[in-house]
Order: sequence, then structure tokens, then C-alpha cells
Amino acid sequence: MTETESARQPEIALSDEDRRGLYRTILSRRDVRGQFLSDPVPDEVLARVLVAAHYAPSVGFMQPWSFILVRSPEVRARVKAAFEAANAEAAALFPDDQAASYRALKLEGILDAPLNLCITCDRDRAGPVVLGRTHMPEMDLYSTVCAVENLWLAARAEGLGVGWVSIIEPARLQDILGLPDRVVPVAYLCLGKVSHFLAKPELASKGWRQRLALSDLVAMDRWGGDAPDPELARALDDAQAWAEAGG
Amino acid sequence: MTETESARQPEIALSDEDRRGLYRTILSRRDVRGQFLSDPVPDEVLARVLVAAHYAPSVGFMQPWSFILVRSPEVRARVKAAFEAANAEAAALFPDDQAASYRALKLEGILDAPLNLCITCDRDRAGPVVLGRTHMPEMDLYSTVCAVENLWLAARAEGLGVGWVSIIEPARLQDILGLPDRVVPVAYLCLGKVSHFLAKPELASKGWRQRLALSDLVAMDRWGGDAPDPELARALDDAQAWAEAGG
Repeated sequence: MTETESARQPEIALSDEDRRGLYRTILSRRDVRGQFLSDPVPDEVLARVLVAAHYAPSVGFMQPWSFILVRSPEVRARVKAAFEAANAEAAALFPDDQAASYRALKLEGILDAPLNLCITCDRDRAGPVVLGRTHMPEMDLYSTVCAVENLWLAARAEGLGVGWVSIIEPARLQDILGLPDRVVPVAYLCLGKVSHFLAKPELASKGWRQRLALSDLVAMDRWGGDAPDPELARALDDAQAWAEAGG
Repeated sequence: MTETESARQPEIALSDEDRRGLYRTILSRRDVRGQFLSDPVPDEVLARVLVAAHYAPSVGFMQPWSFILVRSPEVRARVKAAFEAANAEAAALFPDDQAASYRALKLEGILDAPLNLCITCDRDRAGPVVLGRTHMPEMDLYSTVCAVENLWLAARAEGLGVGWVSIIEPARLQDILGLPDRVVPVAYLCLGKVSHFLAKPELASKGWRQRLALSDLVAMDRWGGDAPDPELARALDDAQAWAEAGG
């Protein structure tokens, strides 16, 4: 047996049940702002969702992420104030007809969720030259986002809600959390058990914006190239209908 | 029954089997460069993995992604040439002792995989002011990365390998694929059935870089803050051992 063969995974295909679990998780994941319960997140569950993040892909295997678990009420109060300041600025940018509905949306659960979590990217984690990052320097940030998405899916499967707070000035987060200049706060997340998950994304059910048709987003070989052939277009529409029904 | 109640998902918790499927997928996902088979990807399977991408979170529900399916040999030959040029530049940046092992690595499967796929981000998809993007303008790019990770996981569950080619000059991709200035090529992916998945990340088994200890990456309340308490630290170590065993 060669070294490569011995390093093969026992089976190529995951089971149909595994696949179903993945799709059910992806399709029922939500950005949670208003349904948090105050129960603490058990250590074992928190550990599993952090492991899911840590097993994300990373450019040059640099694993640039760190996880700051924010339980301190003082730190959270400062983050909440930073959100409030940014949100007032943001609301003023929308045209009048949108500004009122913007202000009616609940956009974060910083104080409601039992746990906040900042996922950061240390841009120097693997030294100055990183395999795969020399022409796309942002690949370390993108790797960190893959970790965020893995954590989000694992949280959903564990019955935990996650909300990503992006209405915040990164420089203020940097200051509040004491991040060195080389460390970027990629995602500030609210995390916790929830009373329920919504059936549809909140921004869709509140009329902010609707899901696009996938088949309109696919082109062949170049931007503005041929649309998918009729068989693929039908498969895309069928798959989206299946997804809308919950997978 | 209130409107909110009627919009609840039928159950809060996915099943234990669903959760197991998610973790098995996350933990066995690989960046594939060398194990592609030439069999075409069936339309139904391609449609499901694209749906998984399309159901990623996006800032302000803007859904900024598009999917360019690259089957044309001419287009792929140009992308391969762009990779070769960038790779020669990248190899020259490593110190002498790393440069030789760098050159020995297979880093892409552009011509081997039956399908290439560029996932782009249209920064104007939802107009100039986007909910949640005013203080973090990169949130649309991050949303697109979430779509990449969803697709990657779905592909793994379907038995398809994915390799992310980041050793490429984005301006050349922009030119080859005819992308307008407002559209960013976030990820150029190789996709297809594979002979096998490797048990460990290739860069780890080839000695490039090893997996870090998760418990070293977690701190409380601020950068350099307290380490996790002993119960959480043990849970993190246990979860990582479970992950290393395949979940």
C-alpha cells in the first residue's frame, strides 16, 4: 500500500443521511437578532461549534483566526454603544421611504444573547509570505469568513442562533477588544439558544428584499455569456423550489 | 396564531443525524488539487451545490454573487496561463529552503477538473446603500465567501472535490472573464468527481504547516485576555481530538 493510499479516507461518499443533514442545516440557517434566550451555552456545544470554525479551509493552511468570547457586561455595553452610534449614521443614509422601515428593524442581539464572539484574522499568523496569498492578499480574511460560516452552520445544527453585527465601526471594535493593528475583527457575532428559528429570512418576510432566482445568476464561460442550457436551467429551478420547501 | 408564530420553523432542533452529517462534512472537506476524475458533473448535482451557495447569508440580503461556469477549453487555457505566471512570481518570494518544497506542490487542477467555476461579487447588486454594509464595505465580499464555503461543503457531501485557485492575478481573471469593474472575482474554483479524498489536509501531510491547537486560539473578553477556564479548555481539547478522529 502506498503512503497516498493509506491516507485515503475510508469512504469517498458521505451517506445520503449525512448529505440531507448538511442541506437541511444550510437551508434553515438564519441571521438571528430577536429570538435569543438567556440560557448559557454549554461548554461542550461551544467547543463543537468552535471546532467547526477551526476546520475551515485556510490559505496556505495559515489558520489566521482567533476567537474572543465576550461575556463581560462592560465590554458588551461598549460594543452596544458602538453599534448605536453606527446605526444612527447608517439610518441617515437611506432615502426617506426606506429610512422608516430601516429604523423599525431589530438589527442585533448584543445584550440579549448569552454570548458574544469576535472572530479575528491575524494577518501575520504564518509570517510575511504565505502560500496562495501573494496575489490575493485578502485570502486570509476570506479564510476567516469560511470559519465564520462553518461556525454558523454548526450553531444552527446545535439549535443555537447566530447574528452577525456588521453595523459597527471596525476601529471602535479594535479599540474595545484591544486588538493589535495586524489583527482584523472580521465578524462580531451574537450567539445563543433561541425560542425558535424563522421560516424565512427576516428581511424577506418584512419586505426589505426578496430571494433572487438562481437561474438568473448563472452564466457560461464569461460574464454576460450564454445562459445555462435548458436542462441545467430546469435543474436550477427545480433545486431552488426544493430549497424553498426546506430541502 | 400570530404571524410570527405561523412563520416558525416546524422544529427548532435538527435531528442528531442531521448534526452528525454536518460535522462529518465539515471535518472531511478538503482543498483538492490532484484527485479529479474527468466525468462530467450531473446537472442535478451541480444545481444542488449552487443552491447551497445561493442560500448563504448575505449583508442586507443583497445576494451579490454570480456563478460563471467555465467549460470552454480556450478560457481555461488562459486561466491556466495566468496561474503559471503568478505561480512563478510566488515561488521566487519564498526563502530558498521553502522554495524547493513549494515548487514540488501541486496547487491547482484547472485543466484536470471537469468544471471550473468563478464566484463573483457584484458590489452594486442592491444599489449604493446596503443595510449592514455602510461601516464595513467589505461585507458583500464576505457574504460571497460564505457562498463559496456553502458550495464547498455541499460539493463534499455530493462526493465532488473543490480546489480554490488563489495564485492568480485578479486583474487577469477580470480580463479573461470579461468582468465589469464593479464585479470582483472572489473565488476561482476547480470542481469535479474525485478518485478519493485525502485523510488529512495535503499541506499538513506534506509537512508545510500543521493544525494549531484550538484552545490556544480562544481568549476571554479581549485580545490577550484570560485563557478559557479549565472546563472549557478541556472541552476544546476533547472536541479537537474528536474532530481529528473524523467526528
